[in-house]
Amino acid sequence: MRAVSLTRGLLEVVDLPDPRPGAGQLLVSVERCGICGSDLHSRLHADELADSLDLCGYPRYARSGQQVVLGHEIYGEVADRGPWCAGTLASGTPVVTVPLVRRGRQVDGVGLSAHAPGGFAELVVVQESLTLPVPNGLPADLAALTEPMAVAWHAVNRGEVRRKDVAIVLGCGPVGLAVVSVLKARGVATVIASDYSAGRRALATRCGADVVVDPAVASPWEGAAAGHGFMTTLPDEYNAGIDALEGLARLPVPWWASWRALQVMGATRPKRPVVFECVGVPGMLDGILAAAPLHARVVVVGVCMGTDTLRPSLAVNKELDLRFAVGYTPLEFRDTLHALADGTLDASPLLTGRVGLAGVAGAFAALADPEEHAKILIDPSLATDRIMAP
Amino acid sequence: MRAVSLTRGLLEVVDLPDPRPGAGQLLVSVERCGICGSDLHSRLHADELADSLDLCGYPRYARSGQQVVLGHEIYGEVADRGPWCAGTLASGTPVVTVPLVRRGRQVDGVGLSAHAPGGFAELVVVQESLTLPVPNGLPADLAALTEPMAVAWHAVNRGEVRRKDVAIVLGCGPVGLAVVSVLKARGVATVIASDYSAGRRALATRCGADVVVDPAVASPWEGAAAGHGFMTTLPDEYNAGIDALEGLARLPVPWWASWRALQVMGATRPKRPVVFECVGVPGMLDGILAAAPLHARVVVVGVCMGTDTLRPSLAVNKELDLRFAVGYTPLEFRDTLHALADGTLDASPLLTGRVGLAGVAGAFAALADPEEHAKILIDPSLATDRIMAP
Repeated sequence: MRAVSLTRGLLEVVDLPDPRPGAGQLLVSVERCGICGSDLHSRLHADELADSLDLCGYPRYARSGQQVVLGHEIYGEVADRGPWCAGTLASGTPVVTVPLVRRGRQVDGVGLSAHAPGGFAELVVVQESLTLPVPNGLPADLAALTEPMAVAWHAVNRGEVRRKDVAIVLGCGPVGLAVVSVLKARGVATVIASDYSAGRRALATRCGADVVVDPAVASPWEGAAAGHGFMTTLPDEYNAGIDALEGLARLPVPWWASWRALQVMGATRPKRPVVFECVGVPGMLDGILAAAPLHARVVVVGVCMGTDTLRPSLAVNKELDLRFAVGYTPLEFRDTLHALADGTLDASPLLTGRVGLAGVAGAFAALADPEEHAKILIDPSLATDRIMAP
Repeated sequence: MRAVSLTRGLLEVVDLPDPRPGAGQLLVSVERCGICGSDLHSRLHADELADSLDLCGYPRYARSGQQVVLGHEIYGEVADRGPWCAGTLASGTPVVTVPLVRRGRQVDGVGLSAHAPGGFAELVVVQESLTLPVPNGLPADLAALTEPMAVAWHAVNRGEVRRKDVAIVLGCGPVGLAVVSVLKARGVATVIASDYSAGRRALATRCGADVVVDPAVASPWEGAAAGHGFMTTLPDEYNAGIDALEGLARLPVPWWASWRALQVMGATRPKRPVVFECVGVPGMLDGILAAAPLHARVVVVGVCMGTDTLRPSLAVNKELDLRFAVGYTPLEFRDTLHALADGTLDASPLLTGRVGLAGVAGAFAALADPEEHAKILIDPSLATDRIMAP
């Protein structure tokens, strides 16, 4: 089969032996495979990523010296199956998959390990139990976005965002845009998105953001979040508590009933924004600690490599939450696929281009410019090396 | 009145004019006032604390150049009241108080601001609406611990700890000990406590810790947490998910029902410990990120001043939560008082000494040695400058 291999930062189209599905695995004919930010990262900083995952007990992440086939945002058709499959997915079934395979107890990330070649290829091996049929005639381009949208779906779950909450999305790369789309699909009333790039801000608007801010010009915290009743200073918070108690003291009820009334009134449940950090560069977290209102909940989706420096006392005095998020559960993957298939979730604004295998290196270069592209899908059937409109 | 004043790090007994309660305020005759870790900190690092709170919108925290009367863990009797009080607390009523007062909209922390002298004195002004009568004949020494125990009560709420959870408490100073006591009072099955000091470990045992670890000898993570089914490596987690899915695939049910069954089985709700960081020195957070199992929830109660350095990618790949905690709500303060008064919560192990006003400087020195003391209460009626047994 033809595939794009990565070795020491070099992407090239190569001929590789067709992969063979093992026990419980399927062979899938790739029709689309998205290029993820972590693919760009793997090309330039593979060893740093691998070191970090090594510390989390996964020592088989692709390293720069290895030949690896990237690609974990896979859409394709079942072409064959290995032994010991349940066999519920017939040949030709359009599928998406949670990109993990295993042999014995050895698990590998598909397209993230030299031991599990990914979807930048004509064929890919996936785990049957983690593979879902694409329902409802969902078009290939949108089905291929299941995996990145599931990352956002999971991040929104991690934030426990409710409909009447205010969500602030910092950074409108593919992850930030996906978070905006999922928030709006799930009925969150107010979504504020922030990015330095005009092109990305335009995409955020198409994804449904209610307010879009250029942080070079306006603060996503002050201007946009105004009028939502967030506490920004400790005296504000203290006064609110004392006001509530003194108001209740004037009611002709015993004190314990007053305190209960206070609880019911929600005076002890402060309004808080849910913040999504989708940038992942050093200094972002400390900037959030300094600027966020009291009690903000921060879902950290952007992956800052190396060390970062912050002032914990800000987080303590503001009682902030930092909830770090990565990936998704199989159930969240399924929910995302179904939200895409029933039209609740519109991922189309993310999609900015398609390329053949010969165009992958060019697509990696193009994705460096946020004004031009967000998500580029690889379609192995395209013979050109140019980036086509979606 | 006699009081202990702090100016430029110097603690001395002084005569001050009796304070007068303003509108909505009570004058309280102090019977006990605890010495808090933040009092020790205020003596040595007042300006750093003040700078940090300034960034959170509270510019009136005590600075080193100001004369301040510390003390915010107050127990006493109502002595007088100002105008516009509800008057529900008669003179002589034993009370504890949330240490905040205000004049107009200006709120100050009692014993934490030069504008609101605290409880290291014979008399103190408190806010009537934030003051509660001590019920059930709760002894003075225990009632005086309401405030620090409320800090722990709040931290446990922030951790959303359930009874069958495993809690790991890092650091057994007064805050860590209080957290251990509250966890056990609230029925948490397994509490692991860790401290380098043998004295503090003995107190943790008295507070009810199920396992007590010296981190110089054993890891609070590995040994003690073993057998609780926490995931420590990514392949463990991936395998568990695939095992669950493949097991379900063998059931004679449609796939969507299988996925639902998976959800019901809880395969997507990983077991996680709840960790309480009660040390507050640089490097603690990064050490937790490196050592904690996947999905751990970390409540940060220790206040690390200045900047701290950590590796966010560890937190991302392990999906950790950092929930920063400070103070408590008035309702939590009430709940803590009632738990102390009805005997559910035993705070007595924390108490290691009592001093008169003349002994405060000596008590500050004694508290530097973790082997000797945890919580020392000031009793203004004691004439000696020696630390008495409780």
